[in-house]
Amino acid sequence: MSTSTDHLVTSPDPSHPANLIPSLCAKFWHLGWVTGTGGGCSIRADDLVYLAPSGVQKELMKPSDLYVLSLAAQASALSPRQRVYLRSPPNLKPSQCTPLFLAAFTKRRAGCCIHTHSQWAVLVTLLLEAEGGKEFRINNIEQIKGFGRGFEKSGNLGYHDTLVIPVIENTAHEEDLTEFLEEAMDKYPDTYAVLVRRHGVYVWGENVHKAKTQCESLDYLFQLAVEMKKLGLPWITQIEPVVPTRSE
Amino acid sequence: MSTSTDHLVTSPDPSHPANLIPSLCAKFWHLGWVTGTGGGCSIRADDLVYLAPSGVQKELMKPSDLYVLSLAAQASALSPRQRVYLRSPPNLKPSQCTPLFLAAFTKRRAGCCIHTHSQWAVLVTLLLEAEGGKEFRINNIEQIKGFGRGFEKSGNLGYHDTLVIPVIENTAHEEDLTEFLEEAMDKYPDTYAVLVRRHGVYVWGENVHKAKTQCESLDYLFQLAVEMKKLGLPWITQIEPVVPTRSE
Amino acid sequence: MSTSTDHLVTSPDPSHPANLIPSLCAKFWHLGWVTGTGGGCSIRADDLVYLAPSGVQKELMKPSDLYVLSLAAQASALSPRQRVYLRSPPNLKPSQCTPLFLAAFTKRRAGCCIHTHSQWAVLVTLLLEAEGGKEFRINNIEQIKGFGRGFEKSGNLGYHDTLVIPVIENTAHEEDLTEFLEEAMDKYPDTYAVLVRRHGVYVWGENVHKAKTQCESLDYLFQLAVEMKKLGLPWITQIEPVVPTRSE
Amino acid sequence: MSTSTDHLVTSPDPSHPANLIPSLCAKFWHLGWVTGTGGGCSIRADDLVYLAPSGVQKELMKPSDLYVLSLAAQASALSPRQRVYLRSPPNLKPSQCTPLFLAAFTKRRAGCCIHTHSQWAVLVTLLLEAEGGKEFRINNIEQIKGFGRGFEKSGNLGYHDTLVIPVIENTAHEEDLTEFLEEAMDKYPDTYAVLVRRHGVYVWGENVHKAKTQCESLDYLFQLAVEMKKLGLPWITQIEPVVPTRSE
Repeated sequence: MSTSTDHLVTSPDPSHPANLIPSLCAKFWHLGWVTGTGGGCSIRADDLVYLAPSGVQKELMKPSDLYVLSLAAQASALSPRQRVYLRSPPNLKPSQCTPLFLAAFTKRRAGCCIHTHSQWAVLVTLLLEAEGGKEFRINNIEQIKGFGRGFEKSGNLGYHDTLVIPVIENTAHEEDLTEFLEEAMDKYPDTYAVLVRRHGVYVWGENVHKAKTQCESLDYLFQLAVEMKKLGLPWITQIEPVVPTRSE
Repeated sequence: MSTSTDHLVTSPDPSHPANLIPSLCAKFWHLGWVTGTGGGCSIRADDLVYLAPSGVQKELMKPSDLYVLSLAAQASALSPRQRVYLRSPPNLKPSQCTPLFLAAFTKRRAGCCIHTHSQWAVLVTLLLEAEGGKEFRINNIEQIKGFGRGFEKSGNLGYHDTLVIPVIENTAHEEDLTEFLEEAMDKYPDTYAVLVRRHGVYVWGENVHKAKTQCESLDYLFQLAVEMKKLGLPWITQIEPVVPTRSE
Repeated sequence: MSTSTDHLVTSPDPSHPANLIPSLCAKFWHLGWVTGTGGGCSIRADDLVYLAPSGVQKELMKPSDLYVLSLAAQASALSPRQRVYLRSPPNLKPSQCTPLFLAAFTKRRAGCCIHTHSQWAVLVTLLLEAEGGKEFRINNIEQIKGFGRGFEKSGNLGYHDTLVIPVIENTAHEEDLTEFLEEAMDKYPDTYAVLVRRHGVYVWGENVHKAKTQCESLDYLFQLAVEMKKLGLPWITQIEPVVPTRSE
Repeated sequence: MSTSTDHLVTSPDPSHPANLIPSLCAKFWHLGWVTGTGGGCSIRADDLVYLAPSGVQKELMKPSDLYVLSLAAQASALSPRQRVYLRSPPNLKPSQCTPLFLAAFTKRRAGCCIHTHSQWAVLVTLLLEAEGGKEFRINNIEQIKGFGRGFEKSGNLGYHDTLVIPVIENTAHEEDLTEFLEEAMDKYPDTYAVLVRRHGVYVWGENVHKAKTQCESLDYLFQLAVEMKKLGLPWITQIEPVVPTRSE
C-alpha cells in the first residue's frame, strides 16, 4: 500500500525536506527556472533522498507528490538504472533527473541538488557554443564570492578568482547525461555546478542553503554575462588588485 | 433568470473549471500574457465549455463572470456564429475568442485552450514577417520536450526534433480568425498551438495541465528565440547526437 | 480637525475610491510604474476627487493618506493653482500631479487618471526625441484594440488603426506641465494619454476599469516598441487586410 | 547569554528596525538586489544600529537574526575594526558590510543604509570602466528629482540637474572598501550613494523612507541607463528649459 509510506513525507516542520522541496519549487517557478514542468530539486537527509516527480507543475507541488529513496539500498541494486524507492507516489512517474541528483549525492556528498532550465544558463551555453567553448569562465565580479572553493575545501572563492563551470553536451535522454555529468565532476573536482548545453544547469551544495544560494548566484552571473555580451563587455579581465593604504 | 444557472459555476472544488479559470487567468496576468483584458482561457469538461467573458481585468475575474456553453447544443445551432449559452453572466459580453476556443475543442478534442498576447509571441511573428516566414521552427533545445508529438499520438517530442508552430495572419475581427485557425489545424495536424501575426498565440492540450504547461514551454521558447536573435544565434542547427559510451 | 473628514476615506467597500487607490498603487509599484514615490493615481466619483499624496511609498499607501477635493468648489477658487481640499491628511503634502489629474477630470470628464514613470514610456520618448518626433505612432498590433476611439465616441480602435499618443516636453516643475497637457488634449481631442518626454505618461479613462486597462495596454505597446527598435522592426507598417472567404 | 538581549529585536511594532530590516530584505530579494545572500541593509535609531548578519537568505531573515551595536560604544573601541555588539545572534557571523554601513551613519548621520548587488548597478560600472569613467552622470530625467540636494541641504535635485554618483574600485575584502567609501564621501559631500565597480552600490538616507526610495530611484536610473546604452542614447544632454507661457 502506497499510503503506508506517507509518514516519510508528512511533517509539521517547514524545514523537513518533504515541505522544503515544494516551497523551493514554487519559488523557482516564479524565478522562471522550472517553467512547464522542466527542472527540479532533490534533498538528501543522511541516507534518505527526497525527489520531485516527473511532469508536475512546480508551483503546485505537494509533499505527497514526492519520491523517497535510500542511498544504501540503491547502492546494492543490481543495476545503476534500477531504482529502489521507499516511497512512490501513486499516479506519478520518477523524474529523469534522478540519476543526476544521485551523482551529486554519492560523488560529492551533496545535501541538495537543483536543476534549472533558466534561459540565462541556456543562452550562456549557446554563446559558448558559437566559439567552441566548453567552460563558462568569469572573474572580477563580487558575486563570485558566493561559491565555495570546492569539495572538502574550506572558504569561498575570492573576487579576483575565476569561476569555472564546465559545459557538457546535451543527450537525447536525460538519464544519459549521468555519465557525462560524472565525468565533468571527475575533471573539475571543485565545481559545484555543471552546465548542460541547450538545456540548463545542475547546481549542488552541502545543504539546502548552499545549493540554493549558489544556484541564485550562478543564475545572477549567467544573466549578467548575457547582458555583458549584448553590451560588448568581456567576461574575463585583468585587474590590478586595489589595496587599502590606511593602517588600522 | 440568470441566477438560476449559478450552480454551473459554483463549486467548493478548486479544480472545478469555474474556479480554475479565474486562478489561471490571475497567474497569466502576472506573467504578462493577458495584459489590459487581452487574451483568455477556456476549459471543456465533457460536453460543457467554460469561457471567460470579454473585457474583464484578468487578475480580478470571478467564477460568476463565466459563460457556460453546451457543445452538443452548439453543434445543432443554425449558424456557427450563433451561440447557445447555458449560462450568460449579467452585464458582460461573450469573448470574441469563443469560436477559436471551440475549434480546439471540436477539431482536437482539447480539454483546455489558452490565448495569450505575450510580447515574446508577437515579437517572434514580427521577426518571421521580416523574412516572409509562416512557421516558427526551433530545434535542439531541451524545453521542446515539453510538447506532445501530436493529436492522438503518444509520447512527447525529443530534444533533436524540430518544433514547428504555424503562423496565421491577423484579421480585423477576432472571430474571423476562426477560418484560418481551422485551416492551420488541418495543415498541421500535430500542432498544439497556432501563432497569430502581430497578435499572440493560441495553445491547447488534452487537459488543463497539458494546455498550461505547453503554453509555458512555448512562451519560454519564444522568449529564448527573441534573445537568440538579439545575440545573433540561429534557431535551427545541425547537431550530432551525443551517445553515452558506458554500458549499464 | 483633520479627523473630522476621515469618513470621506473610510469604507468597507473594496471598490470605494479610497480603497481602490491604495490597491492600484501597490499593483503599479510591482509593475515598476511608480518606483521611488514617482507617479500616482487619482479617481473621480461625481464631484469628489480622491488623490494620492506626494512622496509616499506607493506599495505602502493607506486610505487615510488620501486628499479629497470637490470639483465644484475648485472651479470657484480664485486661482487655478489654489486648491480647496475637503480633506487633507496630516503630515503630508499634495501631489504636484494634482492639476494634471484635474485636467483629465474637467476637460475629459475622466473617472480615473494614472501617471506612471514606466521606463518603457521614457525610452519611447527618448527614441522619438532622437528623430525629432512629437508623436508615438504604432499600427497593426492587436493590443491597439484596447483603446477607445475617443472622447464621447463609442467603440474601440481597430487592429489596422494607428494609435497616436502626443509627446509634450518636460518642465522643471510638474505643475507647469498642466498648460502643455491641456494644449495636447485640445490638439488631440480623441487621445486617452499624453507622453511626457524623459518623464513618463498620463493615461485616463471614463472609469477606473478603462483607465487601468488602457494604461496596461499602452505600457505593453511601449515595451513592445522598444524591443522592436532593438530588433530593427518598424512601428508603422502597410498591411493588406486579411478577409475571411468562408460564408457563414 | 545571548537570549538576554532578545528584547532589543522584539517588538510588536512593524516599523521597529528589527521588523523593518527583514521585511525590507524580503522586498529587496524580490527586486533582485540581494541575490544569493549578497547585499544587505542596516538601520540606525539614535545610538543603536541594527544590522543584518552575513550569509543569510534575505527573503527568509528573521528579527532574531539581527546584530545590534551602539555607536557610542563603537566610537570608544580600541580599533575601528573591532566591533562592540550589544547583541550577537547565536550561530551567525557579522556582515562584512558593517564598517561601510557605519561610515554612512557616522559621516552622514544617515538613518538607514542599503547595499545592493543589482545587476543594473554592476553593468553601469562596467560600461563606465570601458571608457575609464569614475562617475555615473545623468541629467534631464524626471526620476532624478527623487534625490535630496545633499547632506544638510534642504530640497531635492531638479529635472535639469546632473545626478553624479562616484564609482570606487572593488577590493578583494569588503571591509577594505571602507577607506575608499569614506574618501568618496569626502570628495562628493552631497552624494547619497557610491557605486562599487563590478560589485554593486551603497545608498543611504536620513531615514528608512529616504534611503529606500533613493535606492529605488537610483536602480531605476541604472536600468534606464543600460537600456539607453543598448539603444545608442546618451546619458547627458543639453536641453533648453521649457517655460509655461500662461500667467496664473
